Amino acid sequence: METITIRNAESESADNALASIENINQALTDTLSDSRGIIGEICRNLLKAGGKRIRPLLTIHSGLIFGGPTRDLLDAALAMELVHMASLIHDDIIDESSLRRNQPSVNRLWGNQAAVLGGDYLFAKAFSVLAEKNLIFNLNLTVQAIQAMCEGEINQAAEKFKLDLTKEEYVERIVQKTAVLLQCSCKSGAFIGAATQTQIEQIGGYGLNLGIAFQIVDDILDFLGDSAVMGKPKHEDLTQGNLTLPAFLLLEHPQHGPWFKDLIGRKRFSMEELAQVDKILAGTGMIQKSFAIANSYIEKAKQCLAGLPDNSERATLMEMADKLKKRTC
Amino acid sequence: METITIRNAESESADNALASIENINQALTDTLSDSRGIIGEICRNLLKAGGKRIRPLLTIHSGLIFGGPTRDLLDAALAMELVHMASLIHDDIIDESSLRRNQPSVNRLWGNQAAVLGGDYLFAKAFSVLAEKNLIFNLNLTVQAIQAMCEGEINQAAEKFKLDLTKEEYVERIVQKTAVLLQCSCKSGAFIGAATQTQIEQIGGYGLNLGIAFQIVDDILDFLGDSAVMGKPKHEDLTQGNLTLPAFLLLEHPQHGPWFKDLIGRKRFSMEELAQVDKILAGTGMIQKSFAIANSYIEKAKQCLAGLPDNSERATLMEMADKLKKRTC
Repeated sequence: METITIRNAESESADNALASIENINQALTDTLSDSRGIIGEICRNLLKAGGKRIRPLLTIHSGLIFGGPTRDLLDAALAMELVHMASLIHDDIIDESSLRRNQPSVNRLWGNQAAVLGGDYLFAKAFSVLAEKNLIFNLNLTVQAIQAMCEGEINQAAEKFKLDLTKEEYVERIVQKTAVLLQCSCKSGAFIGAATQTQIEQIGGYGLNLGIAFQIVDDILDFLGDSAVMGKPKHEDLTQGNLTLPAFLLLEHPQHGPWFKDLIGRKRFSMEELAQVDKILAGTGMIQKSFAIANSYIEKAKQCLAGLPDNSERATLMEMADKLKKRTC
Repeated sequence: METITIRNAESESADNALASIENINQALTDTLSDSRGIIGEICRNLLKAGGKRIRPLLTIHSGLIFGGPTRDLLDAALAMELVHMASLIHDDIIDESSLRRNQPSVNRLWGNQAAVLGGDYLFAKAFSVLAEKNLIFNLNLTVQAIQAMCEGEINQAAEKFKLDLTKEEYVERIVQKTAVLLQCSCKSGAFIGAATQTQIEQIGGYGLNLGIAFQIVDDILDFLGDSAVMGKPKHEDLTQGNLTLPAFLLLEHPQHGPWFKDLIGRKRFSMEELAQVDKILAGTGMIQKSFAIANSYIEKAKQCLAGLPDNSERATLMEMADKLKKRTC
């Protein structure tokens, strides 16, 4: 493990360098530089589309709470982003989406075949990065996260337009779909930073709750955002039958619930009906209630950090949670 | 590593037990028993469809040439079959095939989404089996094999109906698509059997050449077999624009080459034209020539085994090569 051991002003700047989006992007570009042909084109296209790199940032900050900036930590972080990129490509096939981060999706540009294989290639790349460094703990966590993601996505598809799904089942689904990989990202970093088992579980709890909040906010924005900001069409979840938190709250509403239930049962939505849904959600305070539920998970996430070393890296994770909170106000 | 160390009559029977298809099928069933919901259904469906389990058999026999029957060896073998199963599911999406081993394919039964996620799940399962046992060497090899398979498949798609492809490029493509995983299967087993680096390379050469021969034979059978035996429609490769060895030989033929070139250029084939292709291939001896080329790879494969310990396991690998040879006569 190549460790920069001097923990002083210089090491603080090394920490900052490791955790910068530019550094992560450069390392991703380097890691994918040996991909050739169409797979190479897909990789370059994905890198160009950018992204917030939340998962690798979580890994790096989680590691730096406990240990120094190492190449292993960066590699563990890259693996998380590669898994995320792979799952995005495969999700696009599933959803028959044509837009992703405001860019035409991989399956739109190169077809289903390239999308399937490009995703497989990136999954394999993630494992290769971890296996080359003998990061078995991280590998096992990553495998479990991918399996959970597959189960979450497939359950979501099986439960389309399903009216008797509970809010608890919805949360379980987004845990699998989204939160487990954020949990894995945090635990992976903490492990490399040589955190204790208890600390790894604690920071995993942070990632898990942050992930739930993150997905709830994303789901709310499907009702609020415009497609230019979101990078995908508005009401996509609802019209595809993926019921999310605002929809569950609306279904429970004594006055509007039966109308909404009937609407979902028909599986087709006019522009007027969708506008009516938006109006009711805003008017009855259900959007605010959904944000409040997201907020409660953000608070849980922050509480998980309470027992961990009180340093600037922990503060950064607190800030990442607060930043998400700002989107909920 | 749980090793059965007594090498006598009893251990010979232990070896046989490990390398039986029944044992492999049972171990696959056990490994996949924790898969739930639709993914569980997909897994059970795939297991029921059966298969020759060539890859895990190669791993086990390659291991037993050098060492004893261990659980690690069985796990390494299972990982190879899981990768193969995953790639079959993803190939079906790519080819829009509806039949696989005479069974409706996963994408036909459950849709593209389930096929993508089911494949991802099985890839992850393969890695989890290897990572849990700390089989890093095998993991690295497997990752490389998957990346080669992705590149091979994607190159094949990019080169559909491409008339200026050379026979050498065709061989390079089937190396990536098929042979690298057979090479990986052999090397994985030999590594667990504690073979030397040179021995691992030698047995890898056996797997590689066997894999090339295997794919050439498979490609020839696309022109010969009936769909009931093959588990897929006849002439599927040709009509989809995947030019294989008999097609390359036909393109080179002074008399029939120009006609065939023109036919491929049109990308559409009547039943009469396909029957004409079959007739020419048989009449000009090109099927026999293709089989002879496959045979030359089988011989190369057997030569790779020459320097390895002369025991019953090596004899079994020789027999596996000879068995393929019987299909080429």
